[in-house]
Amino acid sequence: MWFANAAKFSGTIVATMIAIDDAQAMIRAESRPNPSQAVTMNEALGCILAQSVVSDVDSPPHDKALMDGYAVRASDIAQDVELEIIEEVVAGEVPTRPVESGTATRIMTGAPLPQGADAVVMVERTEMVAEDRVRFLLESIDSGTAVMRRGASVRRNQVVLQPGCELRSIEVGAMAEVGCAAVDVIRTPEIALVQTGDELVEIGNPLQPGQIRNSNGPMLSAMVQQVGGRAVDLGIARDDEAMLTAKIRQGLKSDLLLLSGGVSAGVRDLVPAVLVAAGVRQVFHKVNMRPGKPLWFGVADRADQGRCLVFGLPGNPVSGLACFWVFVAPAILIASGRTGQMTIETRPLAESHRLGGARPTYWPAVQEGEDGVRALPWQGSADLCSLASADSLIFFPEGGREYLAGEAVAVLPLR
Amino acid sequence: MWFANAAKFSGTIVATMIAIDDAQAMIRAESRPNPSQAVTMNEALGCILAQSVVSDVDSPPHDKALMDGYAVRASDIAQDVELEIIEEVVAGEVPTRPVESGTATRIMTGAPLPQGADAVVMVERTEMVAEDRVRFLLESIDSGTAVMRRGASVRRNQVVLQPGCELRSIEVGAMAEVGCAAVDVIRTPEIALVQTGDELVEIGNPLQPGQIRNSNGPMLSAMVQQVGGRAVDLGIARDDEAMLTAKIRQGLKSDLLLLSGGVSAGVRDLVPAVLVAAGVRQVFHKVNMRPGKPLWFGVADRADQGRCLVFGLPGNPVSGLACFWVFVAPAILIASGRTGQMTIETRPLAESHRLGGARPTYWPAVQEGEDGVRALPWQGSADLCSLASADSLIFFPEGGREYLAGEAVAVLPLR
Repeated sequence: MWFANAAKFSGTIVATMIAIDDAQAMIRAESRPNPSQAVTMNEALGCILAQSVVSDVDSPPHDKALMDGYAVRASDIAQDVELEIIEEVVAGEVPTRPVESGTATRIMTGAPLPQGADAVVMVERTEMVAEDRVRFLLESIDSGTAVMRRGASVRRNQVVLQPGCELRSIEVGAMAEVGCAAVDVIRTPEIALVQTGDELVEIGNPLQPGQIRNSNGPMLSAMVQQVGGRAVDLGIARDDEAMLTAKIRQGLKSDLLLLSGGVSAGVRDLVPAVLVAAGVRQVFHKVNMRPGKPLWFGVADRADQGRCLVFGLPGNPVSGLACFWVFVAPAILIASGRTGQMTIETRPLAESHRLGGARPTYWPAVQEGEDGVRALPWQGSADLCSLASADSLIFFPEGGREYLAGEAVAVLPLR
Repeated sequence: MWFANAAKFSGTIVATMIAIDDAQAMIRAESRPNPSQAVTMNEALGCILAQSVVSDVDSPPHDKALMDGYAVRASDIAQDVELEIIEEVVAGEVPTRPVESGTATRIMTGAPLPQGADAVVMVERTEMVAEDRVRFLLESIDSGTAVMRRGASVRRNQVVLQPGCELRSIEVGAMAEVGCAAVDVIRTPEIALVQTGDELVEIGNPLQPGQIRNSNGPMLSAMVQQVGGRAVDLGIARDDEAMLTAKIRQGLKSDLLLLSGGVSAGVRDLVPAVLVAAGVRQVFHKVNMRPGKPLWFGVADRADQGRCLVFGLPGNPVSGLACFWVFVAPAILIASGRTGQMTIETRPLAESHRLGGARPTYWPAVQEGEDGVRALPWQGSADLCSLASADSLIFFPEGGREYLAGEAVAVLPLR
């Protein structure tokens, strides 16, 4: 039975490897922001705005007091002067009497300034002398003190948020302030996940000899959430063309489809052929990178005018981790309306590190303050447990040499 | 009617203000990590582990191939030697025949190594010469090449994750790898929100003169989510003791209760008195800080042995924003099992900035690369719209002086 595959089991594939930069540029060229979608204010956090937000009000809507105290005519104020209190206004009320010379209105923060008044004296600079008389304990006050003019911060019809802006908590508050209860945002990317391999067992089931647990599903699902995507885990596909095809067809309805495993040189590595048979156009296969060499990338244009970016990730979880942050995360970020530029930091190596092999390498590492980054012990295995402290990947551009302690290296934070 | 409040409307409160550091220390002293709760692996992302995670397997569970190729006896390999192919093993299968001298087993990445074999030659260094014969294109190979020994990364019963560790995507993958489908984590803090004030209008409703929209509810809800809490917005309480008391009693069932407004010197600032009447022990009221002076903080011990930390935030949204990041966020982080230490960065001022007043000040700012931070134009108003680009707060320890461009300042990032 295995003789049928002998012809493809050969070493000729090395020649087709492309450079990391080229792979990233090809992915970027195929990436598009998602179309927009209306969401309520409560669903908008973390989304990218796809419209302008325009104020429907002047803010503040009236000249308003910025302190608790007394609204006065500034020209009335002198040391120990006393004024008659004619009214009290709290926020939410409207003054009914103008402040004339010799009078003052007790006013609370946020309340509208009465006609005639042009300043607010804070309560701490006053003294009650009778129920309706107040003495002022300051020599003078400038007109405009502790008063915010109508429309001083925002005018009606002013654009307060621009398309492309990320909706964080301040922006959500600003939307509320100007009456914007729902907005168009770039739709959150949906990412379908399929893990391939006859050796995989779901976490609750017993392990038979030769089997391992499916750690890629939970890990990729968590990474997708970490970059703001919505993961739809379609589970394990056995190394069987029909089952794999069915899962792929389902996954192609999403914005991205991430397959794990089945993209290497093995006789059961069916993923590239099944993807192409399902109508996915291959963009590249194999990148000159360690780990992650077998990465496959393609695009499916759908009848509904949508498109799905398809990544065939290596089955080794550490390879999948590296490919995710180097190639997949930028595509998810672009789909969500962001630039997709990952932060690259420069840090000194905390300890020297000897790198074998020849390929450019992303090596799991832990940052130690702003002062250094340390490569974690890792033998290219499928092991995630020894990487539990990893918070970044060091990029080593070439193998076969020793990188010295203190040498500056490029670091990709995992966030 | 307003005469009834005249006695409390005075300036004596200034004397009771405490320092920012003292307020932070008092909040920290009252903060506790939440009790633990069992969650499934899919719910665990972002939580803090409250148990050890122990492996139930050796990982890998067998000596395994790290490449696609041929499992051989290393001592058999020489340039152009040919071996008989006796079997093929893919991941998920178990070899049935031992590799003896003169023979090789075709093997795929992840598959168990056959008995007798001690190295794997990658397929790229081989050539098929017949269906059952392979020629080797390398001079020699070391025993152990491309083989990972059983248990090399994790041994059965080994602790792979420690209590207190944050469950990010790698840790979730590691949990899956070692068979941990559910774990005890520190329960996610629940934060109740109540906004007070007769002037507030919910976002969908028309504005009458003197009214403003409730921006604190949506903004605080979003900030709570940003630091990993779960917000329960109880909505607007009018300046009415009965209504406020009912909302407070409901809010005290949560881990934290954040009230906005009603804590200043105004005649309708009922919050401190109603909180105390509801059994909340006041820890402090008023901090020597700008904005945010009227901050109130107290603690309620519940009959169910739980406790609720209660913050009375100023109603001005910018004051609420500053108080949230300086005082509330650390308490939420401690409740979620983290240290609650906020990152403080040192950055040069991009432009000089004249600070009036006397109080220590947190000023909304925007970071411009790693090179500088710029104070945003802001007049202490209630305006969020002009702060939509703010990503940090600059801490100015004293007022009444000019901070010069290039001067190093402490910066609190808003994240």
